[in-house]
Amino acid sequence: MRALVTGAGGFAGRHLVEHLRAVGDEVVASDAEAPDGLPEGVEALALDVTDEQAVWNALTDVRPQVVYHLAGISHVGAAEADPARAMAVNAGGTRNLLQACLDGHANVRVLLVSSAEVYGPVSPADLPVGEDHPLRPATAYAVSKACAEMHLHHAVALGAQAVVARAFNHIGPGQSDTFVASAFAHQLARIEAGQQEPVLRVGNLMAGRDLSDVRDTVADYRACLEHGAPGEVFNVCSGQVLVIQELLDTLVGLCRTEVKVEPDPERMRPVDVPVFHGDGSRLRERAGPRPERPLEETLAAVLDYWRARVERAPER
Amino acid sequence: MRALVTGAGGFAGRHLVEHLRAVGDEVVASDAEAPDGLPEGVEALALDVTDEQAVWNALTDVRPQVVYHLAGISHVGAAEADPARAMAVNAGGTRNLLQACLDGHANVRVLLVSSAEVYGPVSPADLPVGEDHPLRPATAYAVSKACAEMHLHHAVALGAQAVVARAFNHIGPGQSDTFVASAFAHQLARIEAGQQEPVLRVGNLMAGRDLSDVRDTVADYRACLEHGAPGEVFNVCSGQVLVIQELLDTLVGLCRTEVKVEPDPERMRPVDVPVFHGDGSRLRERAGPRPERPLEETLAAVLDYWRARVERAPER
Repeated sequence: MRALVTGAGGFAGRHLVEHLRAVGDEVVASDAEAPDGLPEGVEALALDVTDEQAVWNALTDVRPQVVYHLAGISHVGAAEADPARAMAVNAGGTRNLLQACLDGHANVRVLLVSSAEVYGPVSPADLPVGEDHPLRPATAYAVSKACAEMHLHHAVALGAQAVVARAFNHIGPGQSDTFVASAFAHQLARIEAGQQEPVLRVGNLMAGRDLSDVRDTVADYRACLEHGAPGEVFNVCSGQVLVIQELLDTLVGLCRTEVKVEPDPERMRPVDVPVFHGDGSRLRERAGPRPERPLEETLAAVLDYWRARVERAPER
Repeated sequence: MRALVTGAGGFAGRHLVEHLRAVGDEVVASDAEAPDGLPEGVEALALDVTDEQAVWNALTDVRPQVVYHLAGISHVGAAEADPARAMAVNAGGTRNLLQACLDGHANVRVLLVSSAEVYGPVSPADLPVGEDHPLRPATAYAVSKACAEMHLHHAVALGAQAVVARAFNHIGPGQSDTFVASAFAHQLARIEAGQQEPVLRVGNLMAGRDLSDVRDTVADYRACLEHGAPGEVFNVCSGQVLVIQELLDTLVGLCRTEVKVEPDPERMRPVDVPVFHGDGSRLRERAGPRPERPLEETLAAVLDYWRARVERAPER
């Protein structure tokens, strides 16, 4: 299978490229700047998805059979700070890609990686949330992803072959420390290295989230494309609730130093929900059970990632 | 109640202004150009909803308690021909209005008039379609309205008081002849006046639609604002299926001349569904039953409207 991955320089993008190579796909990895440090045999490409002509050229040059569309503003805070930009990249980029398919690449199958954020706050009675639940996006990021999905349905009505994956939270090595597991792990690595006093600053620990290892998430992306009909939407999730406190306790247990935990109001998100998890049965019924990595294995990999970075770039 | 109506120069807008006056509301009627021919006591205002500053100024000057937001590109074909424009007006205009509310008019209650088109094709098993059905918009118009709804949910999460009305088809005097009942009635009026050979050109007559008299529709808009909580969505519909053939037969029965009916391929829409009707019970449970006008009364009013226009502007 010949695949083009957009947003391949990002956290999930890099893991997806590795997964596709591991299962034998040919991969072209694109991002706004051509990604470096790619696995052997993967071609790098610079592609700005907001540039309609560039998107058309990329499809024409690369001739992919499938496109994994991950390019986007992925941080909720960054999108809230510049909603117009989030809309241009996340919704406009998707529209450009699908328009290029309609204009002359109709056999290309596209996976839009959307987000569980599109659901907005869901009442506990409606959990785990299924794909048919109404969308009530509560952040600029969520709006931009919901609008991307709306463009997709339009394109599918006109003949495009595209599927939606609504990703729930995922964690793993390589994630920015603006996300919770990495935020904890980065601090712990700095504490171990003696670069920070042994105090861990944390947000809301009582929140329950649906967390996957990113390597399980990206394997599901491929399964969505394999099993999805045009216009179909799949939750990509573990289906389980993990309370952030448990994630923290596991990480602290992996740490080589004694640490004290302190609340930090700046780490609380403006729109928050106490518990949120997905119903992933639609994908599981098609693709079979997911061989999930245990939490401790994932968190050890995250902590090791930050240990290596802290050692490489010691603070003065 | 002091109300600002956007899109007040349009078909539903004019009927809404009349209804609000009839129930005793104070009304400011705005459109891209200040509407003329308004009922006595209604103030006219020019307002381009794509101009953020102008929207802010309008709220500041008019000081409405409620805004009925009807301004938009309302014709499916026009939106498909210029999707970017449809998005800028329909979604961008809604975002501008709600942003102005958030920025300093938080007590203003807003009704977004959306459309049943946002559902896209619905399988017969899911009819009548309820408000919680997933959105799969299949036209540029529908995408722009769905995106407007997404902006609304974001604004509600930030404190705006806004409600969505998803209007199903509505007909009545004053509607453009690009819509089915007016298209038939205009032709019949011209035939009666001897301006057209006695042949009526028609699209798909087998389609079943949920048709309301526009005067019932706009009364429901007011009910949505009265009974809806922020973020709530209401279908505004009759809940009944009317086959277009029956509408045609009723109109032909009202015609003073013998006519022959002929199919016209140009009147078929690109994305069509055989039967489509809504479940309006959410609004009815709050607002009580709707005293619906009989179809024949509505169609007689439509035909009279076109008779008057044909007489005023005879063709040479």
